[in-house]
Amino acid sequence: MNRKLQVKIRRRLGMGFMIAQRAYIKLYLITMVEQHRGYGYEMLVAMKQEFKPYGYVPPQSEIYRALHELVQQGVLYRTKKLKGNDPKVDFQEIVLYHFTNDGAEKAELYKKQVKTDLDRCLNMLHKAVNDNYS
Amino acid sequence: MNRKLQVKIRRRLGMGFMIAQRAYIKLYLITMVEQHRGYGYEMLVAMKQEFKPYGYVPPQSEIYRALHELVQQGVLYRTKKLKGNDPKVDFQEIVLYHFTNDGAEKAELYKKQVKTDLDRCLNMLHKAVNDNYS
Repeated sequence: MNRKLQVKIRRRLGMGFMIAQRAYIKLYLITMVEQHRGYGYEMLVAMKQEFKPYGYVPPQSEIYRALHELVQQGVLYRTKKLKGNDPKVDFQEIVLYHFTNDGAEKAELYKKQVKTDLDRCLNMLHKAVNDNYS
Repeated sequence: MNRKLQVKIRRRLGMGFMIAQRAYIKLYLITMVEQHRGYGYEMLVAMKQEFKPYGYVPPQSEIYRALHELVQQGVLYRTKKLKGNDPKVDFQEIVLYHFTNDGAEKAELYKKQVKTDLDRCLNMLHKAVNDNYS
């Protein structure tokens, strides 16, 4: 693609300097659903643990917003069920996320777009290391 | 450093998910002054060209703010001189940036901090590629 056009499109889409936090989180949520790990609460816990060694803990509100967006975009849908088998004893509901009919396909397309941005960011960071440290 | 403490410090410093655009720009400006390329207008032009192949053009306002911050932090100082030799003919001033007395030292320390963050970001992006694409 023409470079000038590429810059123009990225600006129009409000795409910033680095990959957006929301996109990064959505990528992981999609992969968890692919791996049949779509239990809402566990996804939240996993996300909070995953990046601690990198000095980063994704804000809970961002994870919820990312899940909400994936539902809004028709990629995921929610089901609820009781945690135990006896509704007289256990009232606690758990929330599960699944792909919609064409959700897996939409998710795959989204992952491809995010991959392009991840590669762009990796190149920009490598460039900064090469250009400024000798 | 303790991981919990690392996360806490990063949060307190308002450090985000990825390296800040401002820090990335300041890094390049410092390197240009190190290379005696501290002529304000040329720095601006160079910055706007540098990342075009990556679909990114740093906003002019961000470049000015980055230069302003480096002056405020006592890393750089500004001088002005006439572009030509004859003030009767050429009134156009050019702005030059130089390191202050301890500016080079301060800049080196800042570059070290930014390097740590660049490496962290590179690790997080590599992780995302490894974790989500097979």
